[in-house]
Amino acid sequence: MVIASGDKTHPSGWTVTVTLPQPSIEDNTADADRFCRVLAREFNVDRVNIDLALRRQLPAMLRKSHYTIRCLVLKDQHHAIVVHAAAETDPDVMAGLAIDLGTTRIVMRLVNLESRQSLAECSFDNPQVQIGPDVLARIHHTDQADGLETLQRLVVDAVNQQTAALCTSCSIAPKQVHLFSVAGNTAMSHLFAGLPVRWMIREPYIPAANRFGFVDAADLGLVAADGAQVFIFPNVGSYFGGDLIAGVVATGMHRQPETAILVDVGTNAEVVLGNQEWLMACAGAAGPALEGGMSRMGATAAPGVIDRVRIDPQTGEFEIRTIDDQPPVGICGSGVIDLAAQLFLAGMLDIRGRFQSEACAERLTEVNELPHLTIVPKELSGSGDALYLNQADMDSLMRSKAAMYTILETITGTMGLVLEDLETFYVAGTFGSLIDPRSAITIGMIPDLPLERYRSMGNTSLEGAVALLTQRDLIEEIDTIRDRITYLELNVNQDFMNRFSAAKFIPHTHKDRFPSVVV
Amino acid sequence: MVIASGDKTHPSGWTVTVTLPQPSIEDNTADADRFCRVLAREFNVDRVNIDLALRRQLPAMLRKSHYTIRCLVLKDQHHAIVVHAAAETDPDVMAGLAIDLGTTRIVMRLVNLESRQSLAECSFDNPQVQIGPDVLARIHHTDQADGLETLQRLVVDAVNQQTAALCTSCSIAPKQVHLFSVAGNTAMSHLFAGLPVRWMIREPYIPAANRFGFVDAADLGLVAADGAQVFIFPNVGSYFGGDLIAGVVATGMHRQPETAILVDVGTNAEVVLGNQEWLMACAGAAGPALEGGMSRMGATAAPGVIDRVRIDPQTGEFEIRTIDDQPPVGICGSGVIDLAAQLFLAGMLDIRGRFQSEACAERLTEVNELPHLTIVPKELSGSGDALYLNQADMDSLMRSKAAMYTILETITGTMGLVLEDLETFYVAGTFGSLIDPRSAITIGMIPDLPLERYRSMGNTSLEGAVALLTQRDLIEEIDTIRDRITYLELNVNQDFMNRFSAAKFIPHTHKDRFPSVVV
Repeated sequence: MVIASGDKTHPSGWTVTVTLPQPSIEDNTADADRFCRVLAREFNVDRVNIDLALRRQLPAMLRKSHYTIRCLVLKDQHHAIVVHAAAETDPDVMAGLAIDLGTTRIVMRLVNLESRQSLAECSFDNPQVQIGPDVLARIHHTDQADGLETLQRLVVDAVNQQTAALCTSCSIAPKQVHLFSVAGNTAMSHLFAGLPVRWMIREPYIPAANRFGFVDAADLGLVAADGAQVFIFPNVGSYFGGDLIAGVVATGMHRQPETAILVDVGTNAEVVLGNQEWLMACAGAAGPALEGGMSRMGATAAPGVIDRVRIDPQTGEFEIRTIDDQPPVGICGSGVIDLAAQLFLAGMLDIRGRFQSEACAERLTEVNELPHLTIVPKELSGSGDALYLNQADMDSLMRSKAAMYTILETITGTMGLVLEDLETFYVAGTFGSLIDPRSAITIGMIPDLPLERYRSMGNTSLEGAVALLTQRDLIEEIDTIRDRITYLELNVNQDFMNRFSAAKFIPHTHKDRFPSVVV
Repeated sequence: MVIASGDKTHPSGWTVTVTLPQPSIEDNTADADRFCRVLAREFNVDRVNIDLALRRQLPAMLRKSHYTIRCLVLKDQHHAIVVHAAAETDPDVMAGLAIDLGTTRIVMRLVNLESRQSLAECSFDNPQVQIGPDVLARIHHTDQADGLETLQRLVVDAVNQQTAALCTSCSIAPKQVHLFSVAGNTAMSHLFAGLPVRWMIREPYIPAANRFGFVDAADLGLVAADGAQVFIFPNVGSYFGGDLIAGVVATGMHRQPETAILVDVGTNAEVVLGNQEWLMACAGAAGPALEGGMSRMGATAAPGVIDRVRIDPQTGEFEIRTIDDQPPVGICGSGVIDLAAQLFLAGMLDIRGRFQSEACAERLTEVNELPHLTIVPKELSGSGDALYLNQADMDSLMRSKAAMYTILETITGTMGLVLEDLETFYVAGTFGSLIDPRSAITIGMIPDLPLERYRSMGNTSLEGAVALLTQRDLIEEIDTIRDRITYLELNVNQDFMNRFSAAKFIPHTHKDRFPSVVV
């Protein structure tokens, strides 16, 4: 028996090519049993099951392929099942699709399950937005007749449509997609699976499921190969979803002896702290300031959005960078953080986050008694309107950054650690890839760690989902991660409020915590 | 948590009623996970999976039923799955259907999975007979386009039709059938599952599958409850099917310390020998004589068929019993054995099985130089024609009974045993329930054991299938039985032929082996 598990220097994937011993009078085991016996050894399980449809094809396939078969085997604990099998010479790619199921945006990547190569990627708005912009509105919608079915169909139809387009772009057919890996927050995962969500938002906040395991793609309405399976990342509870577990997988922090932290900033700041021994998580409202939520000019990352600002401390001149170098039309969260840091360093913002009229000079105006700072005059703006940052926006940022710092301080403190103990600080999401850690440190949003400890991870939810498609051992790790996570309820008690108040300064009431911030 | 597994004095079934702890802020596990956690404990597995459709219903069902749920959980090794769940107060019966999938005749029994009561039973001709009367003809038919599909549809359509009638007869719906248990020979099981059979009859005789595990009823085309599962008894190889494994289950011989033998006589005589330590099986052509195959008057058990004969040794008068006391129309295998034994005891047959003209007197005539013995004169016959046994029929019976005895002698001899070592002699099938062991001993077909060691088991294939529906631990026993069986290829060598020749006498060349047969 010859077994080739793809490249042996990589962790094993779900696919394998096996050559079975030929049957004889002395070894006359049935075809399916012969096949499963070899696979059970390869996948280290007592038994491998095989789908009826495949069983029906197997005898002819074995004889045609001279007993050498490429196959896709899924294993969940002791249970393994052959999802697809083909003759070694069959030229069809076996594809898998990873889905980051965001509340507002969905990102998908098509992967060759055997070569592990990325084939194509796309992103699109979650069509459930038309029902409700946020999770809560969508959950309430499920109280209507067919509300849940409508939401489920919307997202599945969009995924089917985009899958077809992705497949076309690399000349394969959706019928070649055998495995899906889906990471979303608890509500998005439930809506994708068509599971009731109404009790998730009512005390004691019970989801329909924490673990989903493998689900038949056909049962979800996904257009894919016959027998295709869907792995939906498990959630810890209503408030800690599979997207974050995928995030932990992407960082690998659960395998490291050193303690690390993962921060994913969206509408909420979600935080996981831990190492190979333990994991602790919490989530807190970091405020809309951090994700393009700025009242007037807020924007998510898009062409023309300001993502970096530098202010010459001598001349007070603004040097502005926009995405794709387009004329400025707005500013995103990371741009606001950059701006605030630079304003502070230039003396245009005081330690309480108030605009300083002298230093701001003619950039500062008042509209309805509210101070406005001109970032881009209308003649340079892409929209024809000037871009402002007003004091209310700034106050909102101060609360957000203080909340973030307080959350980080609280979760590490709960484990008897201080922020300086964090060996690695992973920042996830678009926000994470745009943020300048130096600026975030300057305003005191994140701790004053050596810059090399900060790692921008991009879309960790997608990366975790992709990893599951290509590494078979992850399925058990995901379970371990899920079981190991302790969820910390953030009690907004007096202690928390005291810390929060101390953090509402730039960089902090206790300047000695930010030795690198020198004005 | 309160668990009631039906009557605790019986082995546990697949159904259980569980009451879950109510969720709270402190115990806020998801609904499905809470449910599966309790079931995993009950079924002693690491994890219980739950069907997507059930997951969708579960949150509302749990709250409506105050967390007390009746459910059907199937377990195969470490893998358990919830097939059905209902509120405790739901009045619907959960039914299961056992099927003895015979080549010529199919017998089904509907069972209440919770109370284990038999609800209804029926039997009907296997409609595949219209394609081919025997296994071989049907296998050849699958070489035609859609041949396999046609055969599969024929049997499934008939099962669906009969299931509907069975259900109607006890006021339940086919949608309440959640579990099927199917026992048939290897070819019948394959055709039922739509699996290719063409390599079964070609060297090295490889079936498509030995183990089937649980299969979705819907994938087979069976009309039943959503998510209903089908257990098909495994086969050892092409020549030893699930019907015989079900037979072993029905006898319980695999649990006994004493060695027993199971004999199932159909077209073939199939034999299993063993105890709790080992099992050995073989099959041999016992000849058509044993199942209504008598050339002229052969008949299977039906009204008017002679199943018992007594001859007054003084007067030579025949006392004939027919099924349902109808006027005689034919004679079945057990009737022929009775007849032969009585003829021998009355001196009308010599030890070589030849009619003795003097003792037979006017009953013996010659037609085309072949001696004919009148059993029923035409004036007493149900058909208006006299019923005869001719010398050719008798010779055929002599070969069959000799073959049977030789097979029994050979298989016990292979294990170093003698026939007297058999503590229990199980006789399966209609043949088994009709045969008079005393007569079979008299003609030397079966060994001269004390009569109390003989046990007529009825339809062991059906009984084994029924047992699987109601005893959850059997699934592992079935696997053990399957793995433990050694299949003995009967080599018709000189040694076998010598034994066969010695057995072609009544009762045997060595009269001392049959001390109870006294003429």
